[in-house]
Amino acid sequence: MDALENIMTRRSIRNYTDQDISDEDLTRILKAGMSGPTCANTRSWTFIVVRERKTLEKMAAANGRAADALKKAKVGILVCGDMERAFKPAPDYWIIDGAIAAQNMILAAHALGIGSIWLGTYPQMERVKGQIKLFNLPESAIPHSIIAFGYPDLQASQNLPMPPPDAPQPPPGFPREKGAFEPKRIHYEKW
Amino acid sequence: MDALENIMTRRSIRNYTDQDISDEDLTRILKAGMSGPTCANTRSWTFIVVRERKTLEKMAAANGRAADALKKAKVGILVCGDMERAFKPAPDYWIIDGAIAAQNMILAAHALGIGSIWLGTYPQMERVKGQIKLFNLPESAIPHSIIAFGYPDLQASQNLPMPPPDAPQPPPGFPREKGAFEPKRIHYEKW
Repeated sequence: MDALENIMTRRSIRNYTDQDISDEDLTRILKAGMSGPTCANTRSWTFIVVRERKTLEKMAAANGRAADALKKAKVGILVCGDMERAFKPAPDYWIIDGAIAAQNMILAAHALGIGSIWLGTYPQMERVKGQIKLFNLPESAIPHSIIAFGYPDLQASQNLPMPPPDAPQPPPGFPREKGAFEPKRIHYEKW
Repeated sequence: MDALENIMTRRSIRNYTDQDISDEDLTRILKAGMSGPTCANTRSWTFIVVRERKTLEKMAAANGRAADALKKAKVGILVCGDMERAFKPAPDYWIIDGAIAAQNMILAAHALGIGSIWLGTYPQMERVKGQIKLFNLPESAIPHSIIAFGYPDLQASQNLPMPPPDAPQPPPGFPREKGAFEPKRIHYEKW
């Protein structure tokens, strides 16, 4: 797919068909994740790739109600920060490095026809602790986000669940539409 | 360009030609930035787009030595968090929302033949304070990152500056190559 079209047509996909994701495509997705920029080229991330249904269910249970899509996903990838590699003068750049890797994986998946949804983990510390416990992570690994992957089940997606009740309402005058262009959010030359 | 190829061929570009970036392409880049996922669809970002040379130079001066590329850039975009929109149960998701938007802009630019480099601002607070002061930002806006854009000057880029001296060295056994695939960074099913 064309690169710009790929970026603009990505949507969060919460329902998946039974079709498996090939090892080849999974590697392409992971390569995309590792090809993004990182702070001072620290590459301060690690990935846990999960296909086992029981583990996906446990990951979902430890990540709050919004993570239900993971139970139906074919693959879940837990992006972790690698604090041994984090930029010493400002270690919290790991949060940005992890986000870049995750977004690259989501875009690569979409280019391959694979849907995905981003499930936030950090900075919700009860979720972070839940994933640490589940995977018995070393101290250097901090759970960042989980990306659920699978081929889109478009029929099921016509009945998308409502957004979680704690989702804030957009302020008046701002569009509700996801991915919408909002010229009002851009300042030119000065604030 | 093909979407996967676009992701895999992106490199940080620090030298630019004199060619201007059209308003049309700039809008495409900003649309891509706003099309990424955000935490609970909060869209907790704002963008300051700068073309004026003097302002670009001031932005660079306030953002540390690594920001020198910005002085030569045709456009600089300061991505800011919008804390009025941040997810109330865990406001620090703004850091991830901003990173997704910035990476989408970098990939969209590359698809248009426009080079860019990511200049870290947050969480280096002296840089954050410098940008706040420069743009006289309201309390709700937190500088996140600056992306410098311009058409790649490939001739100048053959003499790329050395990485900053505070860049950590990769641990033994890890590749220095940027964007390299590192299978050792992937765990399957468990840590």
